Amino acid sequence: VVASSALPVAVDAMGGDYAPEEVVAGALEAHHAGISVVLVGPPDQLGDVDGVEVIAASEAIGMDEDPAQAVRRKKDASLVRAAEAVRDGRACAMVSAGNTGAAMASALLRIGRLKGILRPAIATPIPRPGRTPTVLIDAGANADCSALMLVQFARMGAAFATARYGVPAPNIGLLSIGEEPTKGSALAKEAHRLLAAERELRFAGNIEGRDVLGGEVDVVVTDGFTGNVVLKALEGALRFFTAQLAQAFDANDEARRAAEVLLPLLAPLAEQFDPDNTGGAMLLGVEGVCVISHGASKRKAIASAVRVAHELAASDLVERISAAAAG
Amino acid sequence: VVASSALPVAVDAMGGDYAPEEVVAGALEAHHAGISVVLVGPPDQLGDVDGVEVIAASEAIGMDEDPAQAVRRKKDASLVRAAEAVRDGRACAMVSAGNTGAAMASALLRIGRLKGILRPAIATPIPRPGRTPTVLIDAGANADCSALMLVQFARMGAAFATARYGVPAPNIGLLSIGEEPTKGSALAKEAHRLLAAERELRFAGNIEGRDVLGGEVDVVVTDGFTGNVVLKALEGALRFFTAQLAQAFDANDEARRAAEVLLPLLAPLAEQFDPDNTGGAMLLGVEGVCVISHGASKRKAIASAVRVAHELAASDLVERISAAAAG
Repeated sequence: VVASSALPVAVDAMGGDYAPEEVVAGALEAHHAGISVVLVGPPDQLGDVDGVEVIAASEAIGMDEDPAQAVRRKKDASLVRAAEAVRDGRACAMVSAGNTGAAMASALLRIGRLKGILRPAIATPIPRPGRTPTVLIDAGANADCSALMLVQFARMGAAFATARYGVPAPNIGLLSIGEEPTKGSALAKEAHRLLAAERELRFAGNIEGRDVLGGEVDVVVTDGFTGNVVLKALEGALRFFTAQLAQAFDANDEARRAAEVLLPLLAPLAEQFDPDNTGGAMLLGVEGVCVISHGASKRKAIASAVRVAHELAASDLVERISAAAAG
Repeated sequence: VVASSALPVAVDAMGGDYAPEEVVAGALEAHHAGISVVLVGPPDQLGDVDGVEVIAASEAIGMDEDPAQAVRRKKDASLVRAAEAVRDGRACAMVSAGNTGAAMASALLRIGRLKGILRPAIATPIPRPGRTPTVLIDAGANADCSALMLVQFARMGAAFATARYGVPAPNIGLLSIGEEPTKGSALAKEAHRLLAAERELRFAGNIEGRDVLGGEVDVVVTDGFTGNVVLKALEGALRFFTAQLAQAFDANDEARRAAEVLLPLLAPLAEQFDPDNTGGAMLLGVEGVCVISHGASKRKAIASAVRVAHELAASDLVERISAAAAG
């Protein structure tokens, strides 16, 4: 299944904290920017969709629902129907800001896994000032991994960095707790051994936690447990420092005047780290493009995710991932 | 072995990037502040020690040496002799800014493991503005853990938070990738089940990566792989944001003037996160007090680590950890 990017991007209108209003608004924003979209959800709940096509789906999957169960039971859920639209050749890609596990399950059960892929994984771009983002894979799809899975994540992550950011030969770091190959968990040590033997990959060896943000490698490979923890730790740190900074900037009149000078200088950084601009995470290893936007997505984040989904559908991402599976 | 805090703190004079000069200077700083210290190292390499006692040790273990091998071969290493001083009742505690693995191995082989403790673990305090620090355990001693080990880490971490920071009933979070007990790796799920059954612990359930810095729990429990990665990721984030901020603050004359107003307001935060002030990490589960200061420790960090080591030797930490082992 290689979807034509002439097809619309299917947007799960009921997924995310601000669904359906902000999701519909974001989809319309993309539509007005010339990207073909189709909204998936209950037509009577979507408001004015400005002539955009709607695929009817009567149910919604909540953020806290058990993913596998929800996808099995709610056959008419917007998320499930969005995945079916990709499967059936009605859409070139799917976008959801809803339950991540359910998005994964829908993609896996309806679109299907790419041949040879052990397990799909989530690739999340981490902004790097002045450079292409660092791709973290797996950011949370697989809590328990084998070393072979990590090798496939490395291949998929490299394929993604090339297809999405044009990095010709992405260099790949294995997240561990020491740079030497002998440092780390049994899993990390075995993965290191296997990755060092991969001829098609540019393996840079082990990296440490401090190298994830603003580091040298293009792809950070790790299991979905560590990846999710480290990604959320970085998000938490960003939020923490921003809050501390905001407090100092608002301490008194003099500070507020000084802040007026400095804030514009910090704006590009804030802009780059704004999750509204990164386009969301990607589920790699399924037979189609599936973009998972963050749960708090508002219209800007959705529009950005739709744009990325469309670009990826037009790229050779799925073919590259498919080739990566073969190794 | 319960050391009297009337005994000196043994300082590994040859450990760390700035040994022996800065280590000696830090030890002397503590000495002048009224804390009894004994330096361990080659007497002819320590310079003027101002009348402070010296335990002679002719060898030094490098930062990159294999810990177990180095401790086995270099029987006259400063790190090994420092541990022996604690074992032999010549010192109340040991402090090293050297090879962390070698410090662990020395403490384990010379001081010995507390009865009932499966594996010693590293507890690292993470500053929390306006509150006692969050204790992260294990911060890197054990790359592969069992659920039972995590339960002991929780008990040891709680004992440490009480002995060191006076937190009466520390609440404990298990680091995972979702708040529900059913979320996480097989290890995290099993640890959750066991921790929920612990009657003596105030278990707050799962926490996520974003709750490690500035979060609600007093103790964060995790395996040493995840703990080390997340700790270094936070250190990296701190360094990254500080560098970005410094760049904006130095962008032009107007920015530099504004920065002069704001920097004093940010100083307390910088002070709190300065590793020189946190006193280092603690190896818990051995029959004595072992403080591991960061490798880049200069005199201030060493003096601070010595002060903490002395306080802990005077506290009931080791008895509490010993009781924690029994459960």
